[in-house]
Amino acid sequence: MSVYAKPVEVLIDELGRLPGIGPKSAQRIAFHLLKTDAVDARRLAEAIVSMKDNVAFCERCFNVAEGAECSICTDPDRDPRLLCVVEEPKDISAIEKTGAYSGRYHVLLGAINPLEGIGPEQLKIKELALRVAGEDIAEVILCTNPNLEGETTAAFVASKVLAPFDVKVSRLASGLPVGGDLEYADELTLGRALEGRNTLDQ
Amino acid sequence: MSVYAKPVEVLIDELGRLPGIGPKSAQRIAFHLLKTDAVDARRLAEAIVSMKDNVAFCERCFNVAEGAECSICTDPDRDPRLLCVVEEPKDISAIEKTGAYSGRYHVLLGAINPLEGIGPEQLKIKELALRVAGEDIAEVILCTNPNLEGETTAAFVASKVLAPFDVKVSRLASGLPVGGDLEYADELTLGRALEGRNTLDQ
Repeated sequence: MSVYAKPVEVLIDELGRLPGIGPKSAQRIAFHLLKTDAVDARRLAEAIVSMKDNVAFCERCFNVAEGAECSICTDPDRDPRLLCVVEEPKDISAIEKTGAYSGRYHVLLGAINPLEGIGPEQLKIKELALRVAGEDIAEVILCTNPNLEGETTAAFVASKVLAPFDVKVSRLASGLPVGGDLEYADELTLGRALEGRNTLDQ
Repeated sequence: MSVYAKPVEVLIDELGRLPGIGPKSAQRIAFHLLKTDAVDARRLAEAIVSMKDNVAFCERCFNVAEGAECSICTDPDRDPRLLCVVEEPKDISAIEKTGAYSGRYHVLLGAINPLEGIGPEQLKIKELALRVAGEDIAEVILCTNPNLEGETTAAFVASKVLAPFDVKVSRLASGLPVGGDLEYADELTLGRALEGRNTLDQ
């Protein structure tokens, strides 16, 4: 027998489908919404609907966009000859925060992950090839995550997709995090940091 | 400069207000919703609105209810002489799962917490006194949490609220969890288990 009223159960169920929300969190959020002002709860519901109605992926780079193209693709101050390839739109936000990049982006909307059945054809890789073929791009910087899936994707894109084009392909540097401690670095990261060591001017 | 489209920012902001959802989780959920089917996202929004429209707190016990009273208060098979006092509606679900209780409930909708400005007047304690005065209740079982706030609330309800009434007042037993290990029990729990030791029949 269910102890809660049906609409509460339905909401707990829907919340539980969200990533990172387990049954306990879903219950906690549902009761929080039950307690809060009807106006506040409705504002959340409207934010969901409004986003689905007004936001889609940019037709060119697959970043989130309110119109056909995103604010970065339509920005004339961005260098169109630099292209940064990322897995998700949220990665763009991380890179933008560095202030170190002024080119454009291409979002793959995922990474190659055979275990989850995600191959190159599920990603926006064909679209990347079309962009590199059609736009005047000088360098593609592969900024997928430094994990198994991201490395596989970067290797695939570099060797199978971009090889035929006359374009420089680079990869984000791996190494010790700034402010990190050698003692606590894992072997892989330390190994990468050694491999990628930079010559100092003397 | 915001990298995301405005409706995405608004949704991330709204999601971030939920309990247990930090900025990173809010972002993750927003992008999940952006990727999913419009039908699925809309179902979540509708579940929120439907719950706020159809569910309120039971007028008698403050459990969640679809009508004026909850399914437990209106159940004629429930013993009306037993009253279990809990902090939150979700605690009812935990007690119901034990199958060991057949009485009714009273939800305080919180616990006394001076640091957060929650005193007895913010809780459904006056309503509890009115029920004990008006209903034919034989025993009140205080099932608030075994932490500082819950113990304070139980002590307050027992000594200040229920003392004038001719009603048995009991408290959930504290002690070692079933399947637990003496070695790993904290001192407080072990102390409580000793204090509350039961005489065995010989």
